[in-house]
Amino acid sequence: MSYAIGLRCLSCRKAVSLSPFRYFCPHCGGFLDVEYDYEAMRRSLKPSAFDSSKGSILEQWLEFLPIESPGLIARVTLGESPTPMVRATRLPPSADTAQVWLKNDSHFPTCSLKDRSMPLTVLKALELGRNAVGIVSSGNASGSLAAYAARAGLRAVVFMGSKVASGKLYKTMVYRPLAIQVQAPYSEAETLFQRARDEFGFFDCNGLVNPYRIEGKKTFAYEVARDLHWRAPDAVFMPAGYGNGVVAAWKGFKELQRLGFIENLPAIIAVQPAVCAPIVHAYDRGLATVEAIAPADSIAEAVCVNDPVIGGQRVLEAVRESGGRAIGVGEGEIAQAVRILAEREGLAVEPTGAVALAGLLRLLEEGSRWSGGIQVASITGHGLNDPDAGGVLVRHPILVEADYGAVQRALRVALGGR
Amino acid sequence: MSYAIGLRCLSCRKAVSLSPFRYFCPHCGGFLDVEYDYEAMRRSLKPSAFDSSKGSILEQWLEFLPIESPGLIARVTLGESPTPMVRATRLPPSADTAQVWLKNDSHFPTCSLKDRSMPLTVLKALELGRNAVGIVSSGNASGSLAAYAARAGLRAVVFMGSKVASGKLYKTMVYRPLAIQVQAPYSEAETLFQRARDEFGFFDCNGLVNPYRIEGKKTFAYEVARDLHWRAPDAVFMPAGYGNGVVAAWKGFKELQRLGFIENLPAIIAVQPAVCAPIVHAYDRGLATVEAIAPADSIAEAVCVNDPVIGGQRVLEAVRESGGRAIGVGEGEIAQAVRILAEREGLAVEPTGAVALAGLLRLLEEGSRWSGGIQVASITGHGLNDPDAGGVLVRHPILVEADYGAVQRALRVALGGR
Repeated sequence: MSYAIGLRCLSCRKAVSLSPFRYFCPHCGGFLDVEYDYEAMRRSLKPSAFDSSKGSILEQWLEFLPIESPGLIARVTLGESPTPMVRATRLPPSADTAQVWLKNDSHFPTCSLKDRSMPLTVLKALELGRNAVGIVSSGNASGSLAAYAARAGLRAVVFMGSKVASGKLYKTMVYRPLAIQVQAPYSEAETLFQRARDEFGFFDCNGLVNPYRIEGKKTFAYEVARDLHWRAPDAVFMPAGYGNGVVAAWKGFKELQRLGFIENLPAIIAVQPAVCAPIVHAYDRGLATVEAIAPADSIAEAVCVNDPVIGGQRVLEAVRESGGRAIGVGEGEIAQAVRILAEREGLAVEPTGAVALAGLLRLLEEGSRWSGGIQVASITGHGLNDPDAGGVLVRHPILVEADYGAVQRALRVALGGR
Repeated sequence: MSYAIGLRCLSCRKAVSLSPFRYFCPHCGGFLDVEYDYEAMRRSLKPSAFDSSKGSILEQWLEFLPIESPGLIARVTLGESPTPMVRATRLPPSADTAQVWLKNDSHFPTCSLKDRSMPLTVLKALELGRNAVGIVSSGNASGSLAAYAARAGLRAVVFMGSKVASGKLYKTMVYRPLAIQVQAPYSEAETLFQRARDEFGFFDCNGLVNPYRIEGKKTFAYEVARDLHWRAPDAVFMPAGYGNGVVAAWKGFKELQRLGFIENLPAIIAVQPAVCAPIVHAYDRGLATVEAIAPADSIAEAVCVNDPVIGGQRVLEAVRESGGRAIGVGEGEIAQAVRILAEREGLAVEPTGAVALAGLLRLLEEGSRWSGGIQVASITGHGLNDPDAGGVLVRHPILVEADYGAVQRALRVALGGR
């Protein structure tokens, strides 16, 4: 059924069979990546067959995904439809040098981009006969996994660090996963999660370890290309934490080119909060690998990752291979992008969700070669995930008694006294 | 361009011209309803032309809507796509007597059903050359209006009552409307809003007063019929507060029948919280009109409306004409429906969003004539709108130190000690 033919180790490059399922290369312990029979796909698949009216994302891109049992989609899906790609119409004047599109992956059932990859991953758990699925997360991935596990009737095991945004905590706990919050730095939660996975055997749904997460995320690229009537934008701006989103988008665009769906490839611009930008650090210095830096805090907490060692290296490769860049943006730039998206484009996003646009605005402001052409910024999470994010909600309603005089005064001040 | 040919007064039934725009019948002061040239529509429009791949909702249903300037859609839209309709697969056994579908209108850019009607209403404000738009709201409508006003570059004026759910307050204020919170019962906010509208002249976007709100909401019916391959379900369950959603759905289904898109009509089941159910009260007693009752509190605050006098009467008509029912559901039933949706179907919804399913589960439990057939429940708002809603989030994560022994103990208890 599926065109997936095997796995490839990202370290030793050896081929590994799809079955039995494993997280790591049996030869060297490296991470694994799904490979397809692209020749057969190229012969059979045509863009015209992939229109956006055909069910959920898993159904729309079925032939691009490693799904053995399409009948299970109905047990998993929450009806994820393609996300909107809207033209930004009221950005600051410096952005007028480009045609800017906002690909809004906050517009998913659990309000973040994680819903691109989690339905496929949970479906794979069903295919493999697993009863429990697990993840360690800053909140968006745990909410998504808990939702799809609930839908599929699987037990969800969720590890969190000591800080979780209020909306993310709600949207995880409402599904009643088994949730463990570790009162320590996030990396400790990761270590404990891995030990627990090995002892208790739940299906590890983390983005680096589980190769199916990347496969689901690839659909971002497919949708963007389709949104543009089967062409790639000139550049795609994406936030980078562990880097899986960037890696998946790049894989997806390259697949489309290989299959003849698009001619050119976009430049990939990976954007990180400057206070925690190990990938940018490596990019700027021309390094081949990413080194961990000291932990830091950013309002964009979901991509504030100090040690994206493996994924970071793949991001570097994607950025360089595509002729793109890695850039860091300041906290003020992120907050400003949040405000612009809300007040001028009508999109409420969490700070992480605005990081890509912050990078885009920076490069357009600088008048770089990214001025001009079609630029896409990935919007990754809804503002309701993190309503308390610093400095975003700077105004409160005007409180008045039930007295028209008070209303009148407030309106005259605000509306200019007509 | 548009098939809209005029307005009809809902009180005196006199015809009123579309232009100049007015909120009320010039003859009797009644509310107005948009009418179309259904004969011309019947000759020209075929279901096959209305597939779900054609842009946003306004673009998909353009011929059904009173839009004079389609070129303005791009200035307004946030890319609202059709919402998912997913089959409920893990409801309690008593529900197995029917095929239950969940039409998830929480899956919109501002996470509630209000995004069905607000883009059209804001577009009409642009067509009419208005600079400011206004609404009084418990939070979902204000968030939606503020978002689309921001996108369109219009000033939003928002009146709220003294109680607003935390997510709804965030998702309104993030767009920086002029927001006035009246420290008094909701009806006082409504009265003050109307005076302010008359003095300051902003475009009133409230559902009863502005006839375009109903027109946008009709797309719910169109989508449900299309989701079912151009047939109506046997019954549609909807929450009823002021009643506009019910009225709009009924109008939409009747239009589709009139145009030959569907053969039969669904029964309309209007569901209210029993603690505040004036429409149910009138229905049960066979009254022709709805009388206001004393204000009350429900966890389903967005449909806790004690005086839906005009809209309520239209709901009664829809329910009776369709062979449906009006029923009240208890607070415990609503909370239970919230839990079922989250823990068994993977959908996080605010209490109001679960009211329709609570009604559906009640009727299936009773073994009424609604057992059997295709039943659709409208899910109206995301759980992130009201994360603090009583009794929903009853569990917190298990807090542990960075110590594997503690993790192990927690998992053994929860996973059954393997």
